[in-house]
Amino acid sequence: MELLQEKIKQNGKVLSENVLKVDSFLNHQVDPILMQAIGDEFADRFRDCGITKVLTLESSGIAPSMMTALNLGVPFVFARKRKSLTLVNDLITSEVYSFTKQETNTIAISKEFIGPSDRVLIIDDFLANGEAALGLLDLVQKAEAEAVGVGIVIEKSFQDGGKKLRNQGIQVESLAQIRSLQAGRVQFLEEVQHETTTA
Amino acid sequence: MELLQEKIKQNGKVLSENVLKVDSFLNHQVDPILMQAIGDEFADRFRDCGITKVLTLESSGIAPSMMTALNLGVPFVFARKRKSLTLVNDLITSEVYSFTKQETNTIAISKEFIGPSDRVLIIDDFLANGEAALGLLDLVQKAEAEAVGVGIVIEKSFQDGGKKLRNQGIQVESLAQIRSLQAGRVQFLEEVQHETTTA
Repeated sequence: MELLQEKIKQNGKVLSENVLKVDSFLNHQVDPILMQAIGDEFADRFRDCGITKVLTLESSGIAPSMMTALNLGVPFVFARKRKSLTLVNDLITSEVYSFTKQETNTIAISKEFIGPSDRVLIIDDFLANGEAALGLLDLVQKAEAEAVGVGIVIEKSFQDGGKKLRNQGIQVESLAQIRSLQAGRVQFLEEVQHETTTA
Repeated sequence: MELLQEKIKQNGKVLSENVLKVDSFLNHQVDPILMQAIGDEFADRFRDCGITKVLTLESSGIAPSMMTALNLGVPFVFARKRKSLTLVNDLITSEVYSFTKQETNTIAISKEFIGPSDRVLIIDDFLANGEAALGLLDLVQKAEAEAVGVGIVIEKSFQDGGKKLRNQGIQVESLAQIRSLQAGRVQFLEEVQHETTTA
């Protein structure tokens, strides 16, 4: 997705060989026009899959999920990272380890909102080691719903989350695939493929 | 806002005289078409105020803020409830006590995204005791920006958050104002005013 790649090149900050900071347009300050374009793109890629629910994890997955769900005409559910007082009964839970925060969170959804008749599209902002996406997938499976696909805004293709998901036969659509963050520079997978083709 | 009141009547669950559960359409599962209508309504009410940023608090404020910001053509920022490893420098912070969760959280925004030239619209899902809105207001003031107004999806008018904000001269726009949750029933302020008028 060209608009997203441009935004990453212009406004993303490479903090290390593993960390890309995109908090000026995706996960702290949010560019709503970009989110609309992202939602339209996810909706197009999964349009014919009979999606009944979009599922994401608070908080950075909410804006792209909002726009995807609006376009597809279905509700979305955001999994909570821990229990609140008004959300204690009939929960489905999973454990997710965050390498960034170096902590394990319980993520939870209410049984009320995802069930056996649902065809679920999982959306998240980043895919790195796959912990969050696998946790969401676990929630969908425990709910006896069908996980139709996974939509990722930015995939760090040099980490193995994408491989783990694709090896399970799941359709993973990543709008930007980052091959490396070496030497302070963002290199996209598409660029490399293009360079190879035209070399 | 009639659409919202109907949704609350049909799908809201009164758990006690203080607690209204709206997790089927606002703060766990989210109805994107309702969020679009909410965003349009907030944008209309604050259209001529020269808003440059929308500010909210993760997570339930994100969907209505997304739609408001999209309509107004400005970015939105969601304050984080605690620090993450990629968000540690140049933070503006405030303390917010949650009566629901009975805990105090530090909320934070990056100085990079809200500054002295900004005219900020604060958006949140609920207004009860006003702790969250006052915390967001504190962030705006510490950033030396101007808080133009506060947009609330559901105000519990029988608690004093709205009064605290309005006493400071801030324009507060609440799309549904709940007068009471007594006897397991949601009574809106507008209904009471209407009943009084027509009595």
